[in-house]
Amino acid sequence: MPRTRSTPPAPGPVRLGPEARAALRPAAVGIDTGFWHNRRTTNARVSIPQGPGLLESAGNLHNLRLAAGTAEGEFQGAYPFVDTDVYKWLEAASWQLSHGPDGDEPAGELADEVARIVALVADAQQSDGYLNTWFQLVKEGRRYEDLRWGHELYCAGHLIQAAVAHHRATGRPELLDVAVGFADHIDSVFGPPGSGRPIDGIDGHPEVETALVELYRETGERRYLDLAGYFVDRYGHGLLGGEAYCQDRVPLREATNVEGHAVRQLYLLAGAADLATETGDAELRAAAERLWRAMTATKTHLTGGLGAHHDEEDFGDPYELPNERAYCETCAAIASVQWSWRMALLTGEARYSDLIERTLYNGFLAGVSLDGERWLYVNPLQVRDGHTDTGGDQSARRTRWFRCACCPPNVMRLLASLEHYLATSDDTGLQIHQYVTGRYCAEGVAVRAETEYPWHGTVRLTVEETPAERAWTLSLRIPQWCREFRVRCGEQTYDTPVSDGWLRLERTWAPGDEVVLELGLAPRLTAADPRVDAVRGCVAIERGPLVYCLEQADHPGGGLDDLVLDPTRPLAVKHRPDLLGGVTTVVAAGRRRPVPDRGWWPYTPTDTGQAPEPDAGDPVELTAVPYYAWANREDGSMRVWLPLS
Amino acid sequence: MPRTRSTPPAPGPVRLGPEARAALRPAAVGIDTGFWHNRRTTNARVSIPQGPGLLESAGNLHNLRLAAGTAEGEFQGAYPFVDTDVYKWLEAASWQLSHGPDGDEPAGELADEVARIVALVADAQQSDGYLNTWFQLVKEGRRYEDLRWGHELYCAGHLIQAAVAHHRATGRPELLDVAVGFADHIDSVFGPPGSGRPIDGIDGHPEVETALVELYRETGERRYLDLAGYFVDRYGHGLLGGEAYCQDRVPLREATNVEGHAVRQLYLLAGAADLATETGDAELRAAAERLWRAMTATKTHLTGGLGAHHDEEDFGDPYELPNERAYCETCAAIASVQWSWRMALLTGEARYSDLIERTLYNGFLAGVSLDGERWLYVNPLQVRDGHTDTGGDQSARRTRWFRCACCPPNVMRLLASLEHYLATSDDTGLQIHQYVTGRYCAEGVAVRAETEYPWHGTVRLTVEETPAERAWTLSLRIPQWCREFRVRCGEQTYDTPVSDGWLRLERTWAPGDEVVLELGLAPRLTAADPRVDAVRGCVAIERGPLVYCLEQADHPGGGLDDLVLDPTRPLAVKHRPDLLGGVTTVVAAGRRRPVPDRGWWPYTPTDTGQAPEPDAGDPVELTAVPYYAWANREDGSMRVWLPLS
Repeated sequence: MPRTRSTPPAPGPVRLGPEARAALRPAAVGIDTGFWHNRRTTNARVSIPQGPGLLESAGNLHNLRLAAGTAEGEFQGAYPFVDTDVYKWLEAASWQLSHGPDGDEPAGELADEVARIVALVADAQQSDGYLNTWFQLVKEGRRYEDLRWGHELYCAGHLIQAAVAHHRATGRPELLDVAVGFADHIDSVFGPPGSGRPIDGIDGHPEVETALVELYRETGERRYLDLAGYFVDRYGHGLLGGEAYCQDRVPLREATNVEGHAVRQLYLLAGAADLATETGDAELRAAAERLWRAMTATKTHLTGGLGAHHDEEDFGDPYELPNERAYCETCAAIASVQWSWRMALLTGEARYSDLIERTLYNGFLAGVSLDGERWLYVNPLQVRDGHTDTGGDQSARRTRWFRCACCPPNVMRLLASLEHYLATSDDTGLQIHQYVTGRYCAEGVAVRAETEYPWHGTVRLTVEETPAERAWTLSLRIPQWCREFRVRCGEQTYDTPVSDGWLRLERTWAPGDEVVLELGLAPRLTAADPRVDAVRGCVAIERGPLVYCLEQADHPGGGLDDLVLDPTRPLAVKHRPDLLGGVTTVVAAGRRRPVPDRGWWPYTPTDTGQAPEPDAGDPVELTAVPYYAWANREDGSMRVWLPLS
Repeated sequence: MPRTRSTPPAPGPVRLGPEARAALRPAAVGIDTGFWHNRRTTNARVSIPQGPGLLESAGNLHNLRLAAGTAEGEFQGAYPFVDTDVYKWLEAASWQLSHGPDGDEPAGELADEVARIVALVADAQQSDGYLNTWFQLVKEGRRYEDLRWGHELYCAGHLIQAAVAHHRATGRPELLDVAVGFADHIDSVFGPPGSGRPIDGIDGHPEVETALVELYRETGERRYLDLAGYFVDRYGHGLLGGEAYCQDRVPLREATNVEGHAVRQLYLLAGAADLATETGDAELRAAAERLWRAMTATKTHLTGGLGAHHDEEDFGDPYELPNERAYCETCAAIASVQWSWRMALLTGEARYSDLIERTLYNGFLAGVSLDGERWLYVNPLQVRDGHTDTGGDQSARRTRWFRCACCPPNVMRLLASLEHYLATSDDTGLQIHQYVTGRYCAEGVAVRAETEYPWHGTVRLTVEETPAERAWTLSLRIPQWCREFRVRCGEQTYDTPVSDGWLRLERTWAPGDEVVLELGLAPRLTAADPRVDAVRGCVAIERGPLVYCLEQADHPGGGLDDLVLDPTRPLAVKHRPDLLGGVTTVVAAGRRRPVPDRGWWPYTPTDTGQAPEPDAGDPVELTAVPYYAWANREDGSMRVWLPLS
């Protein structure tokens, strides 16, 4: 049911400071139907409302009450950063509140819950501004003694982000006051040698840096920006023992590739991008650009997923992109979107939004079930036939909540603030980065978009508001995956490839002017750089921004690991409104390799370099479903990369 | 310098009980020159003598003194099983002592060291027989409260094995008395419900089971056999929470594949094989045979290495056999040899010794440096160009000693007892499982072997002792990898393939009779079952029992990950006495793929299923070295599986 929205949403997670050197400014989009609207509705009606109950049963809220002295008992939870689950939920709920009341959403209830939990947080804060229930309850008197694992500044970062969101969404000061109090405390404790501050140190888990920049943007207090800059530049100098895990092996400015714990690296880089934006630091910008390119070229899975190792949640080596053991933490996908968005604003380059699109539709969205109630912490690209699941947070099966519950509220906050990652403006006009049905608004300009993307490739854009008699440019991102497109704008048609990702339509617009973009959505086979050893001899099926996979549920009569795809046969598209909440499937021709008994040893001599292949095998219709929708039916095997026949 | 040995070594790690239902009986071999002699000499002269110093500096001996009350200070080490480093060293040193004094080896000093450390162990034992320094010092009063992680029975197992070795090697009772005391204590505590024992439980880390069977064999005390049987059958019933990690998900008798922590699974299966041997339990034997076959067919790396996951040191799923993240713990290779040897004795089948050979020459031997001073805990099949090493125990760089130092003394004990894994006898005669230069002795029969295996394929066997006028069978294992062989025995020649791995020569032998075995050592390319996704489109180079790899050191001018092998060109063999202690290299024709700039995204659309391949690239001579010798030069990349051109 389409709804129109007359006012743009409140400012989002990134609001540039007055001196920012950004190429683009974030613009607001009112999303009102379609793919992302549906997912956001589930987020608003199921995921976010379930948050307080889950935080209560996991003990997070109890810990706040303990710290406030209003309850008795033991600290609950296994990690020093359990407060962040609360903060990320508060951030999600705040962005949700910013959408305003709506007949379908119990906004009043949500506002009450937010106010209640904000009060719990405020009560738990100590008089000097410090706030961390683990160190207040379990490690009393040991503040900042274990910076490598203590996560105190990491927790502060999420508190600050929640507070900024709460302030931007509601205009209320309560949580921002708490965050400012803690930030001021940190600023009084941490600083370089000679600064008079007692500790020259950084947190084992970056996150406070990007948060402090945003706090500067929200409050205008430049100390927070300086503190963020100090932290970013102290990584890589051995303060934490020099481990890559903690981003302490090499300074960002010297690094040649992303490394170590993926989420830590990505949050740090988001902070670096913020800093480069606000300060104009060219060296830091160059480092961020270099590392983004190295990451995407050598350490990114097809889904946009990041992190090759379960062990230490590490990025892994260049071109080390395993399928069944892809870690691809949901939080890493979110952090990647956050970093890339800051890079998009900083540089104006479309590639960053190319990666955002790929990540949103695949590696990120797979993290939450279609019903909004269950989660994946890791997002592998394959679950083998005969998989024995070890359970736990890193299970390949969806889970109601995690022992380390970082991902679920992180998904909630990104979905609830998604409208802020879709469009920008600059002095030339409006840039549309992602295509949704809704209203794109920026600085006197409003454009209405209607689309069934990603299922259909047509986007109809109608200019609704425009300055009179002043030319401006409507820039449309032509996705990196797109091989054919056509844009009709009045009498003109554009279909020549664009070199930098932007199709720019400059004219003096009038209300009612229409632009129709048609993105070719023919399904395609994709191959990897030959250095990606894990997928040699395989292809993946993609369509538009969606990566596809085979699931066991669609292939009865045997496992998936003996299926091969025939690349010479055409791919067919079937719209299946009945399936997985409504998806477009891709059907390919394949065969099921017979499984000969090779005896006890699976390795055989070869004179040609080829294993003795069994005969062709029976033809099988391969039905591929969007990767984001996997693991929503019965447990079973799955694979993205398919061997060729 | 060849030396002859007139007396066979003492009994080894496995001595069958009087009622054992084994197909074969272990026979003794005096190894006196050649490949394994050289490695054993390094073990005897470098590795084992360094043990006490390393155990002293790591604090293991200090902990024993603390427990005995003869020293003061804090417990040293991070794990509850640090005592096992001492026990495994004692076992290694005991086997070494069993070789007798030798002009080159300071046997007297070693005997003194062993006596000194045995006394430390005995002093640390508590009056009721219990012995575990972690629980005596750090977790006092918490005995057996944390069976999942406490490792108390695991420690007891290694103590028992050391004690049996010490007793067999020296005839002395001191350590055996300690072990019997602890075993009796365990037997008084653990038992099934209704047994009157207070605890119905098992250890999170199997190991005591195989040790208890051996203690039964050494002492004749059947209680130990029964206790081992009780433990083996209590796994898989949820006593430890039902985790695969602890072998507690499914009972062995019902399992269809190996799973969970690899070393735990393998030690448990060694115990199961021992039990089946001593009790004739047909169901347990069938389970062990089934699991061995499933493991080798689906979960074994080409090197014999086992364990696909760093995380939880887990076996991984069927056909999940990654290269760069192969865990292949050195201890798992050792445990695999121990289990397979028991299966060889139980069944008489040659395949078990096929796997032992492959494991010894590759996955096991890579665990120790050529100089005997540095170790690998994990044994990957690839180190990528651009690898960032995270250090720590799981580094791909050799390390002097580990925080968890299970592997080094485990290597020492296997090398020091290796002569016990090479030959057997039965009522038909002598079976030679592995070819070394030395004297194979069994029950009135002695055969002298001379060979430069694995570098050369000729083995000359001379009958030295034989019963007069009684026919017996000399059985030679024709390795599973061997495609061409010839045996000359007097006037006769044999070269027809053998179906079960054994070439049986039955006759009435006379002293001086000669048999010449020639195993074809032409280098070969090997391909994997197509379900092994990780090596699709790749081959490995092998020669005889050796798996080969490329190392960066032999390929200047670029990394390894852009090299491709041309399978149509012949492989050449070069003997290189100067290289890596003397190895035979295999030289193959290859090319270096040019590295085009693909921009920021490494995935490209394809219509044929193939990535756009760059042009042929420059020819490169690929020099492959034996995998066991890798990581003995400067740090650099390495790979076993090579993409085809």
